[in-house]
Amino acid sequence: MTSLFPSFDYDQRLKELSESHRQAVETPNPGIWHPTNWYRKHPHPVVTPAHVPLQWRYDLNRDRNPLLIENLPIQATFNAGAIELDGRIAQMVRIEGHDRKSFFGLCWSDTGVDGFTFTGHAIVMPETDDPDTNVYDMRLVKHEDGWIYGLFCTERKDPNAAPGDLSSAVAQCGIARSKNLIDWERLPDLKSPSAQQRNVVLHPEFVNGKYAFYTRPQDGFIDAGSGGGIGWALCGDITRPVVTEERIIESRLYHTVKEVKNGQGPAPIKSPIGWIHLAHGVRGTATGLRYVLYVFVTDLEDPARVTHSPGGAFIVPEGDEQLGDLSHIVFSNGWVCKDDGTVFIYYASCDTRMHVATTTLDRLIAYCEQVPRDPLRSRACVAQRNALIDKNRE
Amino acid sequence: MTSLFPSFDYDQRLKELSESHRQAVETPNPGIWHPTNWYRKHPHPVVTPAHVPLQWRYDLNRDRNPLLIENLPIQATFNAGAIELDGRIAQMVRIEGHDRKSFFGLCWSDTGVDGFTFTGHAIVMPETDDPDTNVYDMRLVKHEDGWIYGLFCTERKDPNAAPGDLSSAVAQCGIARSKNLIDWERLPDLKSPSAQQRNVVLHPEFVNGKYAFYTRPQDGFIDAGSGGGIGWALCGDITRPVVTEERIIESRLYHTVKEVKNGQGPAPIKSPIGWIHLAHGVRGTATGLRYVLYVFVTDLEDPARVTHSPGGAFIVPEGDEQLGDLSHIVFSNGWVCKDDGTVFIYYASCDTRMHVATTTLDRLIAYCEQVPRDPLRSRACVAQRNALIDKNRE
Repeated sequence: MTSLFPSFDYDQRLKELSESHRQAVETPNPGIWHPTNWYRKHPHPVVTPAHVPLQWRYDLNRDRNPLLIENLPIQATFNAGAIELDGRIAQMVRIEGHDRKSFFGLCWSDTGVDGFTFTGHAIVMPETDDPDTNVYDMRLVKHEDGWIYGLFCTERKDPNAAPGDLSSAVAQCGIARSKNLIDWERLPDLKSPSAQQRNVVLHPEFVNGKYAFYTRPQDGFIDAGSGGGIGWALCGDITRPVVTEERIIESRLYHTVKEVKNGQGPAPIKSPIGWIHLAHGVRGTATGLRYVLYVFVTDLEDPARVTHSPGGAFIVPEGDEQLGDLSHIVFSNGWVCKDDGTVFIYYASCDTRMHVATTTLDRLIAYCEQVPRDPLRSRACVAQRNALIDKNRE
Repeated sequence: MTSLFPSFDYDQRLKELSESHRQAVETPNPGIWHPTNWYRKHPHPVVTPAHVPLQWRYDLNRDRNPLLIENLPIQATFNAGAIELDGRIAQMVRIEGHDRKSFFGLCWSDTGVDGFTFTGHAIVMPETDDPDTNVYDMRLVKHEDGWIYGLFCTERKDPNAAPGDLSSAVAQCGIARSKNLIDWERLPDLKSPSAQQRNVVLHPEFVNGKYAFYTRPQDGFIDAGSGGGIGWALCGDITRPVVTEERIIESRLYHTVKEVKNGQGPAPIKSPIGWIHLAHGVRGTATGLRYVLYVFVTDLEDPARVTHSPGGAFIVPEGDEQLGDLSHIVFSNGWVCKDDGTVFIYYASCDTRMHVATTTLDRLIAYCEQVPRDPLRSRACVAQRNALIDKNRE
């Protein structure tokens, strides 16, 4: 060994790793107003691979692992479901190992903006008769039937893939329910008229006495296909989750932020002006798909009827959020509205780590009411903007 | 509202926003020599969304907008045309709202490297009988007929798109002319033998008594198709802009910076050695298309005949330029050569913001004469380089 390669100090290194984990979890994370004033972004990611306990990654027995090799690294922590329980906020994180397999990990915070701490073990999600190759992007919903539901994507190899095609997969909606977020009862996967499903979300209330699903029918694994859009489907018995009719309530649209694909984010928040929805919109670019978040509102009595569509993107990747395992992606499948009106929007950037933006329900409502619809043509956008300039000159 | 979410101080926040706008506009921006010594890059972007006046983005009436919500955000300011007028430099910026629609905004600077200030309103571009969905990438040309022309891309939904295909569009060259850059007379779109057109540029002088266009014929909306390259076409009457013949004068080429696509940047600069052209070249990569800028020279008497082709890229994305709404893109459709020989090269990075590089005409000529042609093969490049090493050893 040359002097270039110093001897390995196990104790010193373990101390450094513990300190790095402690810092990730304990660094305070006050918000900073975004230029839009729609929310504050909090500068530190709220969940990163560094938040995952050392015990989940290293064999910490000195005899077995004297060189302190990391045995099972975490590649990314992203696309977390979120829920408030007993005054604390939980994120059900999509944890991706360095082998590309995702699983769920549960972490808790008192503040909702920092201190997220993983507990216990990685979640053991029961399987159906058809084993999951991958599971991810859980939407957590406290349903009025008393259960907490976790709807997630389950992915399996496409049995009809052409020889040599090792990528084609089939995505379906997995459904599980729990009382404590740790022990889960797996129900059958959702059966729908569509070949594949992703981004399926359970509405928190019964609608006409039935369970209501936001769906995202798609033809193929990556493409939303000829249809797409956010669908709506009802089902009488969630233990036999079959929907026979899917109606698109929120479409894709030419030359908008949702041109190529869109999908429901977390379950909508109930507000005086209606159900407020967070969704992702996708467009194609010269350098790949670009994912942004947008907002729409549906009627309180008829959650399938869109009433407000503030135009354009609500959250886009900015600054450090633009760098990660992938590029130009933000995605959300978790947000929490506390009784006092504080809203915590959890979103992932570049399929890499979790962030939070905080706002209040009244500010979110102001956004929905004051940001105009997308007028869909350049000339109409100019008229919209010049009218704003004229009003400001009055 | 909890203590986590501090109360919103309207006056304080307005002050911060104004200060942020002032800083963006007023920060001095001296150049720093690039390692190539071909130009100086200036560290601060010259136009960003923060340069756009608050009046264009916020309803500043406190009663109507007590939470100071940004009503019409700007997502990006890029791909600006540029021109010198009365000793000042104007950029006609492609402004993209957060709804993805682009329009033109005019800003001015005394120095050309900082202080760019938007005036008045967003440009109201008259339409033809076929409304534009999107307009962008204007090339400004002071033509010897006395008009200032603005040639830009106009995009409309492809009427022949397959059902469910919400992305296919048709790109054509829109033409307008003005005396003051604010009031525009729209002429008919260019008619050419090609299915679509992008990156069409008007040559500043008559050629054989005709208007001369640099074109970029393409088969489809994104792909340049089987043809591509920079074309050349003449037209007697610009108010009836029809070209029947398009000749490729600057081709795409295997394993060069212009393998997949290329296109004329701004109108060429007249110099003692010929017309100096700035163009973009595109190649395909594992993470999408990569756009760089390159230079070529055409004959003074016959602007369709290439005389110099310094090999490789002239400007590539570097440092902070590499991060943005998209990735690995620089693009230019505006530059200015002042009478004293100072050259201002305006270029956008990652479809996000505008930068400037400054050089002088003699330095640009040295570049064209001293950087050798691309020898197209590794072994020939080695010979070229080793000859340089040997010369330096003499």
